[in-house]
Amino acid sequence: MTQSTVSSRALKVPPRTIMTPGPVEVDPRVLRAMSMPILGQFDPAFTQIMNEVMEMLREAFQTKNHWSYPIDGTSRAGIEALIAGLIEPGDKMLVPIYGRFGDLFVEIGERYGADIHTMECPWGTVFDPEEVIAEIKKVRPKVVALVHGETSTGRMQPLAEIGRACRELGVLLVVDSVATFCGTAVKADEWCLDAVIGGAQKCLSVPPGIVPITYNERVEKEILKRKKVERGIATDADRKSAEGRMPIRSNYFDLGQLQDYWSERRLNHHTEATSMEYALHEGLRLVLDEGLENRFARHRLNEAALMAGIEAMGLDLFGDPTCKMPTVTCVKVPIGVNGDEVRSVLLSHFGIEIAGSFGSLQGKIWRIGTMGYGCRQDNVLAVLAGLEASLIRCGAQVNRGEGLQAAIDVYEKAGE
Amino acid sequence: MTQSTVSSRALKVPPRTIMTPGPVEVDPRVLRAMSMPILGQFDPAFTQIMNEVMEMLREAFQTKNHWSYPIDGTSRAGIEALIAGLIEPGDKMLVPIYGRFGDLFVEIGERYGADIHTMECPWGTVFDPEEVIAEIKKVRPKVVALVHGETSTGRMQPLAEIGRACRELGVLLVVDSVATFCGTAVKADEWCLDAVIGGAQKCLSVPPGIVPITYNERVEKEILKRKKVERGIATDADRKSAEGRMPIRSNYFDLGQLQDYWSERRLNHHTEATSMEYALHEGLRLVLDEGLENRFARHRLNEAALMAGIEAMGLDLFGDPTCKMPTVTCVKVPIGVNGDEVRSVLLSHFGIEIAGSFGSLQGKIWRIGTMGYGCRQDNVLAVLAGLEASLIRCGAQVNRGEGLQAAIDVYEKAGE
Repeated sequence: MTQSTVSSRALKVPPRTIMTPGPVEVDPRVLRAMSMPILGQFDPAFTQIMNEVMEMLREAFQTKNHWSYPIDGTSRAGIEALIAGLIEPGDKMLVPIYGRFGDLFVEIGERYGADIHTMECPWGTVFDPEEVIAEIKKVRPKVVALVHGETSTGRMQPLAEIGRACRELGVLLVVDSVATFCGTAVKADEWCLDAVIGGAQKCLSVPPGIVPITYNERVEKEILKRKKVERGIATDADRKSAEGRMPIRSNYFDLGQLQDYWSERRLNHHTEATSMEYALHEGLRLVLDEGLENRFARHRLNEAALMAGIEAMGLDLFGDPTCKMPTVTCVKVPIGVNGDEVRSVLLSHFGIEIAGSFGSLQGKIWRIGTMGYGCRQDNVLAVLAGLEASLIRCGAQVNRGEGLQAAIDVYEKAGE
Repeated sequence: MTQSTVSSRALKVPPRTIMTPGPVEVDPRVLRAMSMPILGQFDPAFTQIMNEVMEMLREAFQTKNHWSYPIDGTSRAGIEALIAGLIEPGDKMLVPIYGRFGDLFVEIGERYGADIHTMECPWGTVFDPEEVIAEIKKVRPKVVALVHGETSTGRMQPLAEIGRACRELGVLLVVDSVATFCGTAVKADEWCLDAVIGGAQKCLSVPPGIVPITYNERVEKEILKRKKVERGIATDADRKSAEGRMPIRSNYFDLGQLQDYWSERRLNHHTEATSMEYALHEGLRLVLDEGLENRFARHRLNEAALMAGIEAMGLDLFGDPTCKMPTVTCVKVPIGVNGDEVRSVLLSHFGIEIAGSFGSLQGKIWRIGTMGYGCRQDNVLAVLAGLEASLIRCGAQVNRGEGLQAAIDVYEKAGE
């Protein structure tokens, strides 16, 4: 290749309004934080940043858990790290599935050799907690894995009763809160969640590539049972204590070694992702500065305006309204309309992105995210305006002009 | 916590001159690229960026391999992805170890159930290729795993003869070029390397958190033997073709699914790390714009100046000079001097960071990196000046004033 073709490869990033369930728009202050210079991983200035991240994660997860830190990978890296740490071949794992991300727990659990038990409910609904508790009592699993907010269906599973039951029964509860963390309450301690995976690129509004997790001493105890410090950096004491142990299968996701990296020992496991760590630090700071309750109220307000606009336009919402996620709104694609065509018009003419869904819902619903920094009045009004015009462009019948008025009504009423 | 304590947590990044073997200073143009807004992962503007990254990676790895793409994780995530994809329990894997990162191959291989065979040579040297080839013929492994540049000892293993032998013997050669990629030649095709892991935060000078890999059709064939598309997104055809297969143990590192994500199918495996992808794109563009040969020459020049300065100061270089890595220079800590104390003075007074080493070399050598954007005359002179003053401060004997003069001589001579 000649130099001129190389130079023509300047990074091109067109302006977009991202109203999907993630990755979403990032606060310019977080983007700016990522442009700070690199620090060495053992530089005291950097380990101070790591410690502050741990402290802020505890507040965001509403927990006292010491082990609250990020994994360097995308959201599913956090899920895999916890499954890898907790599941040994043959361990029983119960997964109540109400959408695609329940399937992901099953998939990862199977690969780590779990004896998987599943229960399912129709997509668009969630489980009655009593039903899950009854199944736990029947199966007696080591681990129950549950999704808090299913972006694939826009539903949110109540967790408190299930958490209490797991604690009483000596079962470990692992929760995927990727799509709810920092957008609606995730109360790790109050709800008795033993391990929680949060998301970066959703309501926290940090770019994808880093995933916050938290877990308690019950989980730590399981992890330490298989702890093995790797060759090349293990001390004699490390080697002695690991004798006869079957280590966690993954080195990258070995939470035992990660704990040593995220503690005073600063074991040289990997090189922490510097710029993503800066982004996480700044993102968490902004969340706590806004205040969790204020942030959750902002998500509820924009959700209410969006729903009002969608319904006034004459579209139907998908799913059971009693368990709707406040951060994702699912809209039925009207009969006779090609959902992908509408999305394509919306992207090409307005630069606005909304999402489709998976599996049995593919082509049947649109999913609109109101998450984090992107969860704002200007964005909600933009997506309503763009969606109406795109629907008309694709030949659909809508109540013209009604959607925006209904949404503005919600905002004005809230401002009174 | 009150809001005022939160606000006091503004990100603090002091100025530093990082002269370790990574993570190193990042070009401001790369930092700026990371501050571009987020794009959705399936936005055509983003998939175009992904395709350009693949194309530029092929040039940087000097390969025609179609599968040249990054893994979202730190360097060892790339190593684990390849081992996870190639090793099934019981598979023979030969690891010639000449430093800490050979141990890492063993560690990861063991966790994935490999039947590991090792050979070792003293730290500070590398293997005679004939010796490795003889061992390959004896062991007949499925995989040979070799480190190209061992940052722990500053040595570089010649690969071409071993690569040719592996090809003839039907053995797969996996190479860790984390510390050499984009700083000195890594010729994937010419040297018959079947899979190569590159580094981001070293000579490519992109922040840690993403890791470029490349592999050929021989590796792809092995991966496809175990391909399984996960529940929740698998089609009937996917399910049928995966019947009876034992999938790759890790979901996150499942290269079969990653291939589908990095191809027209755009299988929704994970959410690609947007900002890190921007950084990689811009970092590669800058490498190719400079030109690989120019870049390698720049690394050799700064290495020569650094070595001249170190020796003129009266310090000794560590290791066999015939196999020295051009991107890392190892210096013996003089007898009677506390190496960590010198590093601490250098960091606290000059803001300059150099590294110690691991295992048997801990406390015995310093490692100075001349990598990527940080591989510059101003940095080399700064580290020489700071090191001399720090040594004097710690009571060591040095040839005062000689180091800088010797280094400048090298630069002036090169400029003639």
